[in-house]
Amino acid sequence: MINYKVILNFIGFLLILDGLAMMTGIPFSLYHGDDDILVLLITGSGISISGLLLYYFTKSKNKSKEITKREGYIVVSLGWIVMSLFGALPFVFHGSIPSFTDAFFETMSGFTATGASIINNIEAMPHGLLFWRSLTQWMGGMGFIVLSLAILPILGIGGMQLFVAEVPGPTKDKIHPRVRETAKRLWGIYVILTFAEVLLLLIGGMNFFDAINHSFTTMATGGFSTKQDSIAYFTSPFIQYVITAFMFLAGMNFSLHYFLLHRNFKPVGENEEFRFYSFLIFAFTAVIAIGIFTTEHSGVERAFRESLFQVVSMITTTGFVTADYELWGVFYHTLFFLMLFIGGSAGSTGGGIKAVRHLLLIKNGALELRRLVHPRAIIPVRYNNISVSKDIIFNVMAFLLFYLAIFVTGTIFMTLIGLDFLTAMGSVATCLGNVGPAIGGVGPTDNFSHIPDIGKWVLSFLMLLGRLELFTILIIFSPSFWKK
Amino acid sequence: MINYKVILNFIGFLLILDGLAMMTGIPFSLYHGDDDILVLLITGSGISISGLLLYYFTKSKNKSKEITKREGYIVVSLGWIVMSLFGALPFVFHGSIPSFTDAFFETMSGFTATGASIINNIEAMPHGLLFWRSLTQWMGGMGFIVLSLAILPILGIGGMQLFVAEVPGPTKDKIHPRVRETAKRLWGIYVILTFAEVLLLLIGGMNFFDAINHSFTTMATGGFSTKQDSIAYFTSPFIQYVITAFMFLAGMNFSLHYFLLHRNFKPVGENEEFRFYSFLIFAFTAVIAIGIFTTEHSGVERAFRESLFQVVSMITTTGFVTADYELWGVFYHTLFFLMLFIGGSAGSTGGGIKAVRHLLLIKNGALELRRLVHPRAIIPVRYNNISVSKDIIFNVMAFLLFYLAIFVTGTIFMTLIGLDFLTAMGSVATCLGNVGPAIGGVGPTDNFSHIPDIGKWVLSFLMLLGRLELFTILIIFSPSFWKK
Repeated sequence: MINYKVILNFIGFLLILDGLAMMTGIPFSLYHGDDDILVLLITGSGISISGLLLYYFTKSKNKSKEITKREGYIVVSLGWIVMSLFGALPFVFHGSIPSFTDAFFETMSGFTATGASIINNIEAMPHGLLFWRSLTQWMGGMGFIVLSLAILPILGIGGMQLFVAEVPGPTKDKIHPRVRETAKRLWGIYVILTFAEVLLLLIGGMNFFDAINHSFTTMATGGFSTKQDSIAYFTSPFIQYVITAFMFLAGMNFSLHYFLLHRNFKPVGENEEFRFYSFLIFAFTAVIAIGIFTTEHSGVERAFRESLFQVVSMITTTGFVTADYELWGVFYHTLFFLMLFIGGSAGSTGGGIKAVRHLLLIKNGALELRRLVHPRAIIPVRYNNISVSKDIIFNVMAFLLFYLAIFVTGTIFMTLIGLDFLTAMGSVATCLGNVGPAIGGVGPTDNFSHIPDIGKWVLSFLMLLGRLELFTILIIFSPSFWKK
Repeated sequence: MINYKVILNFIGFLLILDGLAMMTGIPFSLYHGDDDILVLLITGSGISISGLLLYYFTKSKNKSKEITKREGYIVVSLGWIVMSLFGALPFVFHGSIPSFTDAFFETMSGFTATGASIINNIEAMPHGLLFWRSLTQWMGGMGFIVLSLAILPILGIGGMQLFVAEVPGPTKDKIHPRVRETAKRLWGIYVILTFAEVLLLLIGGMNFFDAINHSFTTMATGGFSTKQDSIAYFTSPFIQYVITAFMFLAGMNFSLHYFLLHRNFKPVGENEEFRFYSFLIFAFTAVIAIGIFTTEHSGVERAFRESLFQVVSMITTTGFVTADYELWGVFYHTLFFLMLFIGGSAGSTGGGIKAVRHLLLIKNGALELRRLVHPRAIIPVRYNNISVSKDIIFNVMAFLLFYLAIFVTGTIFMTLIGLDFLTAMGSVATCLGNVGPAIGGVGPTDNFSHIPDIGKWVLSFLMLLGRLELFTILIIFSPSFWKK
């Protein structure tokens, strides 16, 4: 039986958080004399108080009441939806994003750390709302780390049990105690890294407001910027390298940061996903840097910096932009489209398919041929010196096929509502992968404002699907989920 | 140990066949007074005699010498390559296709029953060469039916053991006796259906030469036509419906024709792949017919006929064309691109991924969600009332992922040599799927002559990969294949 009281109680807690968080940008608006102070104050306190009431009236007397797996799926899915529905309100009430569809798209893009935007003039937005917009990504990233390193492994989704450094194992049907403990540790790292980036960006000459906003959206691999031109606005190579470095760190498994903080470099260097993730970034950067150096004649350092930045931005699914890669020719354009399907490391804030899944499938592909030659031999995939069971590879393959089926279905739908083929493919791939920019009409210098409303709702749903590793959402649509 | 003598002996046999077959079109050229008679006669007899010598000098005294699995892989792969290499010669010697690259592409497109062409003026070709061109498809189709219903199940490729009506099972490491028996039965059906189509096309008013050529290429789901405009040239609705019907029959599992010939309709109606294959054709036709009826205002019958013809042509991987679907708008255009990835039934002459693989993966996808809800339950996929082992589903998933990885790699390569993104995707998808026409610069009214030479070689390789269900070729590139 599903305990709806527990679920509502948790939603109440999230609403308190949502409302309080949206008021944190008020000091910036006070300082700049912006006109969004009253809206943030009233909306924020309204949502917090509603949340408090909901929390209070659904409070269980039984302290030891735990959340079961099924309730976990519902809480996680509803959590992201409720946060976005209410988080969108200040944009609408203030009038800077008058359409609720647009505001919801923007907020979902925030909480899922996608970074796709419908705003045509970001610099015209008041500071409080901009801060809230960046904060949705930072909070979404925080939520996702805990989800992917503490909750999904227990739920057993898409091979996730394999990707965490310490495999918790599905010992109990309850998820509460472990989550709290893991969350504390990971959030510590997340906060430390964010502060470090703020500091370095300030040293690079960025103002405090921009530094904190970009640090929030870098660490979440979100990609919202306070500038219409994204990071291309900041021409300082130092700033661009700092952001590149922190995107790279945010795209790593956060369990590895734990080792790094304890100066234990061996497990990091030996981690196969980390090596594969680094190799992918190196390989794509090398090919693209050589290509644009020979065709664009922009100088070695610039070719290297732009390639590295853009590759790291796409593979970590951040989505910041320093160069319009659509001008680099169809081959590069195709590579960037492909990168939408890679994704960061598992256990990072990155979205998409994830490096480890690709690695496991490449390894399995090579072994499939060996298995054909020796049909009777049992030849398991080895990952980080562990034999991976065929069931986990099975899960990973199923995940990838679901991902591609959703991509194909989404693309067909987008062409049906009038998008051209490239824009349809690009918008679906980038939203499902939680990246941000794509190709065609949603390229690095475009935004999503021109997509029809129904398309924006579908893309918002795809962002959510991608963020919650597909199955968390899909399982709720499965009839057997609701059967006793 | 690989017995190269047996392999060479088989290649000798194939060359005899290749040479003799290319001379069969000479009567048509005699009748029309064409200038290709001498070329066909000299090339054909030269190849036959070379083949005879090779066959004679590699003949084993040990009559009971059987081919092993490993030799089977080599014979099959080499067979298609050798047939195409030598089959291309008359086009070059005659001068109607002066470039060997082009002639090889055209002949590989023939033997793999793809139907992609580089000829810019088909009507200018002499009749003997045109007949040879159609015959390559008919022979390739014949070869493939035996391959897919008698050889691949024994080799255990991509779940093929499941797709045949009577599962032979890998009882022995030898493949000879069963192949001969199965081949005889299937070829009987293939020849009967071809004759029936010739007869009906003659009744529809087609001349004898066109009727026999188009029957050859229909039954092979090949799609070569003797007309530059393909079937759009034949405006008779009767002819178009006849060809539609025979494409549909050719895209069915040939084991089912066996039942049909014995008037045993029940196993056909109950076959899940056949039902799924019919459903796909029905669904795509309905959506497209309604769409073009409402937008093109071409009359109900014509909208139905053109939609049905084009859908059947693409799903069976034939590739005949009666209408330029690229004019129907981006949504339809996307649907046709998608159809390149479906494929006919297993055990048909159709190429591509095959309906049954999609069906199994859809079924498995639905069950994956149930498995997440009930992690301890064992929930197998059921197909034709049989529980399918997880290993077979695993094989099918691996096949699909290999297919997509090859598609992606091929597309990137094509953009690297200068094709635009759509043409790159289209050319790779249509060659790998053995279809023929695609989208972009290789749409239904274009051909492949403008592709750079290196691209034609890559596409030829992709046709071969697709035709031989990927693994037959890939396994030869696996190091463990060559280890003792």
